[in-house]
Amino acid sequence: MINQYIHFRNLRFLLHEVLDAEGLTRFEKHAAYDREAIDMSLDAARQIGDIHLFPHYREMDKDKARFQDGEVWVHPTLRPAIKALADGGWIAATDDFAAGGQQMPWTVFNACLLIFYAANGNAASYAFLTRGAANLIRTFGDENLNRTFVPKMYAGDWQGTMALTEPQAGSSLSDITTAAEPQPDGSYRISGQKIYISGGDHRAVDNVIHLLLARIKGAPEGARGISLFAVPKFRPEGGELVANDVVTAGIFGKMGQKGYVAAHLMLGEKNDCKGYLVGQPHKGLAHMFLMMNEARVATGIMAIGTASAAYYAALKYANERPQGRHPSNKDVAQPQVLIIEHADVKRMLLFQKAVVEGSIALLLQCSYYADLATVGLPEEKQRAHLLLELLTPVAKSYPAEMGIQAVSTAMQCLGGAGYCDDFPIEQFYRDIRVNAIYEGTTGIHGMDLLGRKVLLEDGKAMTWLLEEIKAVIESARAIDDLRDMAEALENTVRQFHKTTLGLIRLAMEDKPEVFLADATLYLEYFGIVVISWQWLKQAAIATGSLKNSTGEEEKAFYGGKLITARYFIEYELVKTKGLDERLNRRDRLTLDADPAFIN
Amino acid sequence: MINQYIHFRNLRFLLHEVLDAEGLTRFEKHAAYDREAIDMSLDAARQIGDIHLFPHYREMDKDKARFQDGEVWVHPTLRPAIKALADGGWIAATDDFAAGGQQMPWTVFNACLLIFYAANGNAASYAFLTRGAANLIRTFGDENLNRTFVPKMYAGDWQGTMALTEPQAGSSLSDITTAAEPQPDGSYRISGQKIYISGGDHRAVDNVIHLLLARIKGAPEGARGISLFAVPKFRPEGGELVANDVVTAGIFGKMGQKGYVAAHLMLGEKNDCKGYLVGQPHKGLAHMFLMMNEARVATGIMAIGTASAAYYAALKYANERPQGRHPSNKDVAQPQVLIIEHADVKRMLLFQKAVVEGSIALLLQCSYYADLATVGLPEEKQRAHLLLELLTPVAKSYPAEMGIQAVSTAMQCLGGAGYCDDFPIEQFYRDIRVNAIYEGTTGIHGMDLLGRKVLLEDGKAMTWLLEEIKAVIESARAIDDLRDMAEALENTVRQFHKTTLGLIRLAMEDKPEVFLADATLYLEYFGIVVISWQWLKQAAIATGSLKNSTGEEEKAFYGGKLITARYFIEYELVKTKGLDERLNRRDRLTLDADPAFIN
Repeated sequence: MINQYIHFRNLRFLLHEVLDAEGLTRFEKHAAYDREAIDMSLDAARQIGDIHLFPHYREMDKDKARFQDGEVWVHPTLRPAIKALADGGWIAATDDFAAGGQQMPWTVFNACLLIFYAANGNAASYAFLTRGAANLIRTFGDENLNRTFVPKMYAGDWQGTMALTEPQAGSSLSDITTAAEPQPDGSYRISGQKIYISGGDHRAVDNVIHLLLARIKGAPEGARGISLFAVPKFRPEGGELVANDVVTAGIFGKMGQKGYVAAHLMLGEKNDCKGYLVGQPHKGLAHMFLMMNEARVATGIMAIGTASAAYYAALKYANERPQGRHPSNKDVAQPQVLIIEHADVKRMLLFQKAVVEGSIALLLQCSYYADLATVGLPEEKQRAHLLLELLTPVAKSYPAEMGIQAVSTAMQCLGGAGYCDDFPIEQFYRDIRVNAIYEGTTGIHGMDLLGRKVLLEDGKAMTWLLEEIKAVIESARAIDDLRDMAEALENTVRQFHKTTLGLIRLAMEDKPEVFLADATLYLEYFGIVVISWQWLKQAAIATGSLKNSTGEEEKAFYGGKLITARYFIEYELVKTKGLDERLNRRDRLTLDADPAFIN
Repeated sequence: MINQYIHFRNLRFLLHEVLDAEGLTRFEKHAAYDREAIDMSLDAARQIGDIHLFPHYREMDKDKARFQDGEVWVHPTLRPAIKALADGGWIAATDDFAAGGQQMPWTVFNACLLIFYAANGNAASYAFLTRGAANLIRTFGDENLNRTFVPKMYAGDWQGTMALTEPQAGSSLSDITTAAEPQPDGSYRISGQKIYISGGDHRAVDNVIHLLLARIKGAPEGARGISLFAVPKFRPEGGELVANDVVTAGIFGKMGQKGYVAAHLMLGEKNDCKGYLVGQPHKGLAHMFLMMNEARVATGIMAIGTASAAYYAALKYANERPQGRHPSNKDVAQPQVLIIEHADVKRMLLFQKAVVEGSIALLLQCSYYADLATVGLPEEKQRAHLLLELLTPVAKSYPAEMGIQAVSTAMQCLGGAGYCDDFPIEQFYRDIRVNAIYEGTTGIHGMDLLGRKVLLEDGKAMTWLLEEIKAVIESARAIDDLRDMAEALENTVRQFHKTTLGLIRLAMEDKPEVFLADATLYLEYFGIVVISWQWLKQAAIATGSLKNSTGEEEKAFYGGKLITARYFIEYELVKTKGLDERLNRRDRLTLDADPAFIN
């Protein structure tokens, strides 16, 4: 039921019992995705995971991407892996049939994406980065760009990238300086540098298409003067591919994800780099941000995929490794017990299970909102859209931050063995860390959540979220065994809401620095509340399913849901006490701290 | 004032203003260690750090220890580094003059150890591991063993190790099976395997002496049948060194500390491995544990040394890197601000400073207790000894666990750059992780703290600790600016004490599994209380010193102490709310969880 990296039974529980993914068949676009089709999709994803991804996870780290003679060499298993994903239709899966896609709902697709990322995020990322880039062209590019680039990208022959970061512009995209000069043929001459470009150059594809942010000569300063371009490594010219003056200066030596190259690119050093405008001039950031929710949810999925694989490695070890005896048994003549018998090891495993399955539930919930926001009825659409907007910073950051903790806990379960490369945990530990940096650091998401999302449309998103949570609390309260948990969450949510209103008041009274100073802690608080909601929801459903289930395995599955939900309420929800207290202080401590005193 | 890895001004503050290390001159043993001598010791340590350790930290990782042709190759800078530490008298520093030492107080020595570990823990560890091993021989070994091994070890020519762990006996030392058979010549024939033996074999020394736990044939089962042996790689025989049938099967591929070898040893495969009994038969664990406090405090120092170096790397970056603007300033024509100007970055830096300097304060406090426990007046001795016993699990685990978080936060300050090997943070991140596993995992220390130490001598240690904390609260309460902080800690300590008593009651009512189930959380709670105590103590002293200080740099130093103390109370102490709530539940959640439900 559980293979080495993902718990399929859990995915089916979330899709069929919690979210009613099959219900999306009521919309014409997804009419084909009945329960059987969904399960077939999961199985197809698993096959690729088992054959093309998971077996190469460790190798891709040991035999990492390297830069040599001006070229980026990647692991030989990467090309077939990308092709397998492309051939299976996964790169274009959510697109319309007309565009070469499969009209797969996001809810189903993201469950499959989780399978790929859990199996080997370093390989799968190449393909799904291409997906995002192709999607930008498809959505904003003209017919010609579409015809030239998209089919090759969907086929996995050409890599797509997102080329945003520059040496002087990381989190601050408004400070981008890469230049684009209009040319008589309608193209632009690009010049500048981009750093940390994932998939930016490598030999497992025949071409690389950079979806690149640059400034058209004479454009307004800041965010309002940034445009989006497609900049190929080789440009098609007269039926041939011609080098486009995009030179890889080197690749970055990363602590983890060593198989997933991050390149440093020099564009237009010979004045011969052509870029093609995608969408409207000066609307580059807006175009990019339309895809950002998707990319951020995907980053959450990547993080929790890694934490998932780490959890099942730790769980396997805990079920096999004898060590020590119970504190009340000092008789060394008796055999040692399996470490899963120790309360502290159970605590560590439940923590991982709570983080992993709680995060997956939230990510699929967001994916479901993404579906409703796209295909739903008009009134559903707006609600789903705003809920997705509000939850995205959490869906990105919670799996990243808590996934890091979960993998660290997995390592702790193995002790010294976990720190050594006989087991994969040490790689998971290195790999997952970057997810708190990708697609906006956690601090940036805290500012986004509190500074923008909570206030969105006069707080309507927040009101709706509280309604959703309240509905789950009510359904759980009706179940005897869950009543105390429902009430614990209800009390926390009441306090959370009060604290949120206090912060909003502060936003109106003082400059934004003040109420945003502890935005990262607010994000953490928000995350715990939201994951509690997802656990309570799962617990309510599992209670019903448990009654009707037969067989030890099924009972253990639902019993596991109940115990883990309780774990989350008992061990994680209580952490909001300290966060709430902190967020209600008005001391401006960090804001006013003189940098010279931080020494 | 701050070099790249340690804040010397802070060490002088702690030694001279907070702890009155010079006051130890009142004891004859340490009569030579007046303020000048202490400062000279720190300077001497810094010189070795600057010349022999810090410059090679990164190289030792890149050009890591490797096993080839049956030998362990280490970085060529290691031999001179070990020799420099030996020649400077550092390996024997705390020993008596008569034994070749310098009679250095632990308080001073551990401050210097911190310098070495912050500069390059991977190199310095070899020397101080030898120290611990030599010390066991010196304390428990007979005259002959002393003469044969100790001088060579103190000279840095021979490596010492602690050989405890076996494949089937990690945390559970009672299950050790390595055998020792008495021989006619008084030695023992050793056979067995040892794993994860740090410094276990390498070419930067001429011999390796393993202080090894084994079972004499016919010994009682369990902990009471374990003896301590000195087992050399080459045994001196007739004026020559003869191979002693200790074979290195391989070394472990560690995620970090790659320059600090961990070996897998096979002993007596040819039936020719001789060991020499150290101390009494069957008292091996007791002998080993007499040195354990020292080794555990040293592990805390190693951890926080790494976190210290990471903090100063992050601080430097934050003071040099411009990025973004304040939320109230949307004018992109204005230059970007240094990231240290952002409240969230200040929060991240203050967190690191709070963890690093708070941990150092606790570790030196423990070292001071170690001195009093050794040389103090009779009534001081017992008190200091018990306080050290009680605090040791915290002094080991808090710097390890929170140091890991601090280094992760350092990485977050750098964003993508922190994840890449252009900066040293990614190595700190990998290196520090093992400290939560070394010398007893955090879970083991939780059990030690709550299951043994808190109850020690009917809770006398605990009573004395609360007295020490209360004294600091009173001194802080007398200072207007600190009153609120003193009261915050007072309230927390009151609740902490109540919760502790509740757990002790539980220990008497039910089997030990019950009250120990959340021992790891109790350790975390204890750690926050104890570090708050250390911060309040520093704040009270800094308030006085600030009044009498002149010069910007001094004012910034003391001002930094005050702001960081407040940070700890405002952001860290509040975390006890959730921990306290959790520890007062009586749900036996993890204890009763059916392992089959953890799936």
